[in-house]
Amino acid sequence: MSSQVQKLKVGIIGGTGYTGAELLRLLVQHSMAEVIAVASRSEAGTKVSDLYPNLRGHLDLSFVEPKIEAFTECDIVFSATPNGIAMQHAPDLLARGIKLIDLAADFRLQDAAAWRHWYGEPHACSELLSEAVYGLPELNRESIRNANLVANPGCYPTATTLGFLPLIRESLIDHNNLIADVKSGVSGAGRGAKVANLFTEVSDSFKAYGVSAHRHHPEITQTLTAVAKQAVTLTFIPHLVPILRGIHATLYADISAETSLESLQSLFEATYAEEPFVDVLPLGSHPETRSVKGSNLCRIALHQATGSNKLVVLSVIDNLTKGAAGQAIQNMNLMFGLDESTGLNCPAQLP
Amino acid sequence: MSSQVQKLKVGIIGGTGYTGAELLRLLVQHSMAEVIAVASRSEAGTKVSDLYPNLRGHLDLSFVEPKIEAFTECDIVFSATPNGIAMQHAPDLLARGIKLIDLAADFRLQDAAAWRHWYGEPHACSELLSEAVYGLPELNRESIRNANLVANPGCYPTATTLGFLPLIRESLIDHNNLIADVKSGVSGAGRGAKVANLFTEVSDSFKAYGVSAHRHHPEITQTLTAVAKQAVTLTFIPHLVPILRGIHATLYADISAETSLESLQSLFEATYAEEPFVDVLPLGSHPETRSVKGSNLCRIALHQATGSNKLVVLSVIDNLTKGAAGQAIQNMNLMFGLDESTGLNCPAQLP
Amino acid sequence: MSSQVQKLKVGIIGGTGYTGAELLRLLVQHSMAEVIAVASRSEAGTKVSDLYPNLRGHLDLSFVEPKIEAFTECDIVFSATPNGIAMQHAPDLLARGIKLIDLAADFRLQDAAAWRHWYGEPHACSELLSEAVYGLPELNRESIRNANLVANPGCYPTATTLGFLPLIRESLIDHNNLIADVKSGVSGAGRGAKVANLFTEVSDSFKAYGVSAHRHHPEITQTLTAVAKQAVTLTFIPHLVPILRGIHATLYADISAETSLESLQSLFEATYAEEPFVDVLPLGSHPETRSVKGSNLCRIALHQATGSNKLVVLSVIDNLTKGAAGQAIQNMNLMFGLDESTGLNCPAQLP
Amino acid sequence: MSSQVQKLKVGIIGGTGYTGAELLRLLVQHSMAEVIAVASRSEAGTKVSDLYPNLRGHLDLSFVEPKIEAFTECDIVFSATPNGIAMQHAPDLLARGIKLIDLAADFRLQDAAAWRHWYGEPHACSELLSEAVYGLPELNRESIRNANLVANPGCYPTATTLGFLPLIRESLIDHNNLIADVKSGVSGAGRGAKVANLFTEVSDSFKAYGVSAHRHHPEITQTLTAVAKQAVTLTFIPHLVPILRGIHATLYADISAETSLESLQSLFEATYAEEPFVDVLPLGSHPETRSVKGSNLCRIALHQATGSNKLVVLSVIDNLTKGAAGQAIQNMNLMFGLDESTGLNCPAQLP
Repeated sequence: MSSQVQKLKVGIIGGTGYTGAELLRLLVQHSMAEVIAVASRSEAGTKVSDLYPNLRGHLDLSFVEPKIEAFTECDIVFSATPNGIAMQHAPDLLARGIKLIDLAADFRLQDAAAWRHWYGEPHACSELLSEAVYGLPELNRESIRNANLVANPGCYPTATTLGFLPLIRESLIDHNNLIADVKSGVSGAGRGAKVANLFTEVSDSFKAYGVSAHRHHPEITQTLTAVAKQAVTLTFIPHLVPILRGIHATLYADISAETSLESLQSLFEATYAEEPFVDVLPLGSHPETRSVKGSNLCRIALHQATGSNKLVVLSVIDNLTKGAAGQAIQNMNLMFGLDESTGLNCPAQLP
Repeated sequence: MSSQVQKLKVGIIGGTGYTGAELLRLLVQHSMAEVIAVASRSEAGTKVSDLYPNLRGHLDLSFVEPKIEAFTECDIVFSATPNGIAMQHAPDLLARGIKLIDLAADFRLQDAAAWRHWYGEPHACSELLSEAVYGLPELNRESIRNANLVANPGCYPTATTLGFLPLIRESLIDHNNLIADVKSGVSGAGRGAKVANLFTEVSDSFKAYGVSAHRHHPEITQTLTAVAKQAVTLTFIPHLVPILRGIHATLYADISAETSLESLQSLFEATYAEEPFVDVLPLGSHPETRSVKGSNLCRIALHQATGSNKLVVLSVIDNLTKGAAGQAIQNMNLMFGLDESTGLNCPAQLP
Repeated sequence: MSSQVQKLKVGIIGGTGYTGAELLRLLVQHSMAEVIAVASRSEAGTKVSDLYPNLRGHLDLSFVEPKIEAFTECDIVFSATPNGIAMQHAPDLLARGIKLIDLAADFRLQDAAAWRHWYGEPHACSELLSEAVYGLPELNRESIRNANLVANPGCYPTATTLGFLPLIRESLIDHNNLIADVKSGVSGAGRGAKVANLFTEVSDSFKAYGVSAHRHHPEITQTLTAVAKQAVTLTFIPHLVPILRGIHATLYADISAETSLESLQSLFEATYAEEPFVDVLPLGSHPETRSVKGSNLCRIALHQATGSNKLVVLSVIDNLTKGAAGQAIQNMNLMFGLDESTGLNCPAQLP
Repeated sequence: MSSQVQKLKVGIIGGTGYTGAELLRLLVQHSMAEVIAVASRSEAGTKVSDLYPNLRGHLDLSFVEPKIEAFTECDIVFSATPNGIAMQHAPDLLARGIKLIDLAADFRLQDAAAWRHWYGEPHACSELLSEAVYGLPELNRESIRNANLVANPGCYPTATTLGFLPLIRESLIDHNNLIADVKSGVSGAGRGAKVANLFTEVSDSFKAYGVSAHRHHPEITQTLTAVAKQAVTLTFIPHLVPILRGIHATLYADISAETSLESLQSLFEATYAEEPFVDVLPLGSHPETRSVKGSNLCRIALHQATGSNKLVVLSVIDNLTKGAAGQAIQNMNLMFGLDESTGLNCPAQLP
């Protein structure tokens, strides 16, 4: 911290939501990066630390208008806006040699028609889709290193894909009968003023939502299909848990009678042995979301269901960290040749 | 309420746990029943309302020792103790003509060997197992009316069985590929002093537990097998949600391509049309556990998963009410020829 | 319930907020009242039970426009709208002989200028202020019996006033040094879509708010001054607790060295001995808000602070019940000569 | 981190409670300290990260028996045990030249008779009391630098004392009429298996406790009296909030009519201008406990109550960090001449 290294100059578009706040929390602790601009249309002029009092004393910036001029000095920009905004800024930023990581969905689906179907509007720069790298380091590390445009994965897709990945890659499960019963904390719903997300509507209750269709579904199947090199059939059911942060994916897959649980455990351990942010727990473990709260880790445990051929994979992340801002910084570290873990080594708070 | 009807005289063994507390809360409002004795070994001599201040002004009794003498005047006794206690009292109570509803597991499994396997000790009165009626009114109403000994179902089994029942009965799903991903509020873990259930261990977190084996699993398969008249294969995974009360079962089953969702919706509506405590929601609904908090209702909604042949059934109950004490009182009403809904008509508190 | 009594016909204006929902929850269980109209500008046409699923099967009404025609058959109307609405409806309703209970603040302050100061607009029917009775039964029971227009007290004022009342009436405390450190659950903030009340903003945190000025302050001092027959000086500091329902008032007052705690305990017990909804706990008790959740009770306990002359009064209510809808129904019962407790006898849910 | 500085060798006695866990969370991130031994009688032999999964990958130690041999290599030992244990280890550790910070109460009260009165047993090494320094850096920084034995302040005393300190020191308030209405998160109650701290007993409720007497009361008055150089009269009322971490102190003091709020604000700002861990907020602010969650900050805001001469000071800390482990590490940094903020600069997690 003392000797003056050349720090990365970082900009953030859309800094008022929770992924923006988490980016800021992590970046003010990052030894090799410095936030120089944070934009928000609604809060331009407000001190960032007035909106996020946890940052008082850590960041002395005010929100600016989201105009390109604010970011011309940046090495990299994170877009933490609602869907459909990053694709408006992307061509201009990239043309100026500024790298871009989009934490929304604009560049996650490689098929512009699919994007239009799921997000309800035509894609504004479909010509960039082929250039965008899906920013899951455990899958695409080398491509990320060389990318100028990274599509940061969704929170459900991160937890789900990391749980299925070794099984799909080795063709050890029935591709036509995958189930992801996933549960998310409330910060996944964002900071918008909606009755449905009031404390009084969410607290002390539990529900499924979006059962008929959820936008993270095609994102997951796109990845799993690419890995499997064949079609996969996934049933994906999201639920809302009254916790601030955390995703718990309970994954079900059929394995053949010859496949032992121990061999799968070895496979997972081998697959993720060198991964800084995937922690395979001992057989029989039950990972808690709090064990990763505020950290960039994905913790995974394997179980064989009683009396059936189902493998059950439990996978937990913090939706704002490994599921959003932490993974984005992991990607930034890769894109600039930094140690992948820089700024991401805090253990979770417990309790 | 004014004219003096002859009220049922009710005793409770094990009144210090949460199912005991819920029995008391409901019974003090029951127009046709009167609690005359509440036993607890650990709290004998304590006023019930000192332990449960919500009952101050509603119940003027002190806990007594759990001896048979305390219950000889009773028409019916509820046993709300840990597993393995009711089977010690049952023969004596029944011999005296006192009906018994056990809210623990002692009489749920019809096979004494299975009981021994799952509960770790030999059954103390296996000769009564054939006499015990499984107290799920939607399945066994007529038998319950004539029963002297009722095994009140577990909380998970109630939510799960009601969600699968119409499908199993009509053989509309693949019996070999059932999944129940179930989530329970913390009161399901009881009132014991355990570190694992401290506020500081449970709050703001989510986890699966007992993935390798849970005692409610054989209870559910026993019922479903009996209805299906063939073996069923169920994967059953419980989770802990940081809420006080509530169970949410997310049930997965394969349906054939010819079976329409609308026909299944009609089947559920027809099956439960006359049931006072099963509420089939319109297609596309997402029942919240809070919508049944403190009520005896089970609310059910059906969905077809996107892009697969999975039927998804969402089923919610309050684990202490329809999942325990409320259902026990429903059974009592049946056993004594009362209106089945007596004392059970309060809507849930919301928010 | 069996023989057909003539039930009161009840209307509700503003049925979409939490006090409206609580009125409905209580009224559907009230043996002597029937809701015949529920109005909401924003939800006209929607089924009430679609908005509040806990009422499915209990109430088969849809919201109507808040026009006088909808209420002409009513014996009584509850206004559960934001402040400033009831005063627009009041003259018309009263002229038609329909009694009115306002759960908002329109008729709480007897001084129209004070109303204008605190609520930011002129009072629309200040001529009715003298006719309005402040609906705290423990203070104004006889006036309420004869009232056509009742101003239902605020939630903080109910808990605070009941805790200070015996002391003020008997001049046993220093009127110039009263402190009310009060804590409210989040439902007190209403059902509006505000960022500040999101689960993610409120959960797992605690704060004071409105320290410089809160509208319930003049309401409390108005009542205490009237009882004391002299000015009182009250410091009133509200806080937000991450719970659904409940108010906990911690009240501080100076007593003279001659006044014993036991004598004050006796005073409180005597004052409230005949009150159906005030429960004075034994000395040394610590009332929990959950002990009154969903009930109409106010529970009070007295303490002498260590090493000082401070009397500490702890007073808890459910802000939606005794602090709003329950007390309104208590007032309705009085206004129509019913048993004061009708429909209000449920014990709190616990846990 | 790369070049090998000589790190402090740190031992922890009593590492299984929440203050022990927080010490470990902070110390594994501390660039100048290394934990070499963690003792626990009950968990000896268990891997620390099996008990605290958030430490997996951060700490590769197992608990050892709490014997002196385990700590002979240590530069400093933290005692995070229940009260009454540190005083058994202290003489031996100090005799070996090992510095000791006690996070329990053994050395907080300077009067052995007072200790006996409040803690119910005679003090085991009262000869060390005069040597022990009360570890509130804002009050005793220079003494702490030279101390071998530090009594780490209690959580309530930290929040309360920092809020009253400038006022007491300058004699700007009436010393005979201080009130501290304080609220604590549940982790303050520790990790013991008690029914009273179960999720099901605490969640969705609020209560006062220990109103008649709390051990932190004499600790606060001891400090305030020493600063005031005269007796002070403090009314101290603790409450339990259903949050994991956080203390909110609402402090009331009488100021004279000549004292302006602005002058007090200036006094607070000047007093704490150089303090790394006290943040005086702008006038009119309402600090939230979440704004300091997991951080070592105390945030303070001043208000003048409406219509009275009361100054209201709001003071928030995280009870496990500034209220325990964080402050202990701040003290360690001072005792060893390190930068006072080393290892304590993380902003709070939000949301």
